[in-house]
Amino acid sequence: MATIKDIAEKLGISISTVSKGLNGASDVSHELRETIIDTAVAMGYSTKRMKREDNKKLAILIAHIDYESNNNFGYDIVLGFKQAAFHDNWNVDIHPLDINFETREKFENFMLKNGYSGAFALCLSLNDPWMEQIKTSSIPVTLLDNHIPQNPNTCYVGTDNYEGIEAAIRHLVGLGHTKIAFLNGDKDSMISELREQAYWDGLRANNLPADRMLVTNDSFTNVDTKKHLPALLENGATAILCGNDLIAYDVIRECNKLGLKVPEDISVIGFDDLPTSSEGDTSLTSVRQDRIDLGKCGYLALHGLINRVPIGRLLLRPELIVRNSTAKVVDR
Amino acid sequence: MATIKDIAEKLGISISTVSKGLNGASDVSHELRETIIDTAVAMGYSTKRMKREDNKKLAILIAHIDYESNNNFGYDIVLGFKQAAFHDNWNVDIHPLDINFETREKFENFMLKNGYSGAFALCLSLNDPWMEQIKTSSIPVTLLDNHIPQNPNTCYVGTDNYEGIEAAIRHLVGLGHTKIAFLNGDKDSMISELREQAYWDGLRANNLPADRMLVTNDSFTNVDTKKHLPALLENGATAILCGNDLIAYDVIRECNKLGLKVPEDISVIGFDDLPTSSEGDTSLTSVRQDRIDLGKCGYLALHGLINRVPIGRLLLRPELIVRNSTAKVVDR
Repeated sequence: MATIKDIAEKLGISISTVSKGLNGASDVSHELRETIIDTAVAMGYSTKRMKREDNKKLAILIAHIDYESNNNFGYDIVLGFKQAAFHDNWNVDIHPLDINFETREKFENFMLKNGYSGAFALCLSLNDPWMEQIKTSSIPVTLLDNHIPQNPNTCYVGTDNYEGIEAAIRHLVGLGHTKIAFLNGDKDSMISELREQAYWDGLRANNLPADRMLVTNDSFTNVDTKKHLPALLENGATAILCGNDLIAYDVIRECNKLGLKVPEDISVIGFDDLPTSSEGDTSLTSVRQDRIDLGKCGYLALHGLINRVPIGRLLLRPELIVRNSTAKVVDR
Repeated sequence: MATIKDIAEKLGISISTVSKGLNGASDVSHELRETIIDTAVAMGYSTKRMKREDNKKLAILIAHIDYESNNNFGYDIVLGFKQAAFHDNWNVDIHPLDINFETREKFENFMLKNGYSGAFALCLSLNDPWMEQIKTSSIPVTLLDNHIPQNPNTCYVGTDNYEGIEAAIRHLVGLGHTKIAFLNGDKDSMISELREQAYWDGLRANNLPADRMLVTNDSFTNVDTKKHLPALLENGATAILCGNDLIAYDVIRECNKLGLKVPEDISVIGFDDLPTSSEGDTSLTSVRQDRIDLGKCGYLALHGLINRVPIGRLLLRPELIVRNSTAKVVDR
């Protein structure tokens, strides 16, 4: 566990300043105090002073994604949520979900018996038993990447998929690509549907023809690219837009196996901008989701719901990060 | 100007409790203190203690809508924003805009020379000169009912038009209506476009045919219903969905002039649920936008932008309020 000294070193300030910040001394500015507390939370530091006085509790429910290492998609989302909640004196518990647990225990029972005022649910799929229960629950829940119509106790938090996919297509069109394939994630996911809709809209906005043969779904976390790649290439794809970075990594590997160089022979774009996407032989052009900010927004909207402000959607702006996996189109 | 006594009477608590709340005494609960401050702001009360210490300033920019009386659409939006901003120690100034002022003064110059950290812009139209300037500005701006693509310093705040129109159509379909006309507001408005799109989607979701002859645009604030009504009726409309309540009031008046009773002969639905919509001979079925909450969300998103969390969209849930202007379809 981190000490005050670790925090001081990390921030390049004195131990006494860290101590003052944590104790709310008046000669430390509001901004610096916020930074000190955020860093302390991120480093796992806590003192009696930092422990929440009363028993205000929130839950983070996590399904289908990894979050324990800082290379994982979920890591910064959890951190951003905890940092924001901490400033309002909430305790936050993390609960990984799986289908057995969701079948054994009812969502509302779980929340009530543990004394949670609300939850931030990460990446539940449309098939998860708790999704069905949250649809009619009166307990405040913000959902990453899921929208529940007509239930004002829930809020969809995510990145604006339309703007992200639109920026990716605009970038590829600027490089001369007209045959842009889309290898998307799981079919039973709202995000997949939104990204596919944004893809068709993006083609139309750029006066490109829609070609059903250039679009296919697989899995966000366990893609089998080689099942799809030959057909996409046969249909003339010069660029492959991917449902997320994990898919894009696999596409690059499979292209290389077929003797195709990225980006010389084919361009590839991911979605998420995972920490690993700037590494490797081919650093990835990707639509960035700021995961710390997503976590903060998850809290912000939950705070709204708990205070009876029925926010239904809260979407962050994405940012296209251009690296070495995209280049001008060439005639293969 | 309101006194402490006025606030105490309004809340049904003692003068000394109000005084303690305004002064942050520790024996007044956090929740009560928030309520006391919100009420004090709403009633125009202020003391030295309540005046902001430093010079943190935000602007509310208002175009094309009324906000000065509590029957006006803008009144509660301004109030909700001020209440939320007040808790974070901001001063808030209100600036009505008109085309002359927007032409004479540049948006960024105005913001900088007045020392504003950000703005909440209400109801600017796509033709307003400042809209064009905000598109490329780096000053944080949240916009009621306007979305600016690709500028992460701006955020669209509003009510979820899709869910509102969908609920209205579902209600009418439940009453047996299949010929639902749509008399929409101004053509040069993002809100009009979204509501029309939601209308077509809502018809499709309910397996109703799309009929171009049942849809027309006029004005949100100065509608000339009699220009449109005969054609809509000739085309078989048994219900008229309206772009807002002001349009719906006019539709009811014009129907009555033609000898049609609402809701016996024709159903009418508004959008907004203005304070006046529950009054009059025919109280209005309307899609409710909670304007206090819209104002709070305007602040919430602006607070995010100022702290570099690039929220792009923040949408509140609407609520369909069913009153006496809708009824089961009859054969005319």
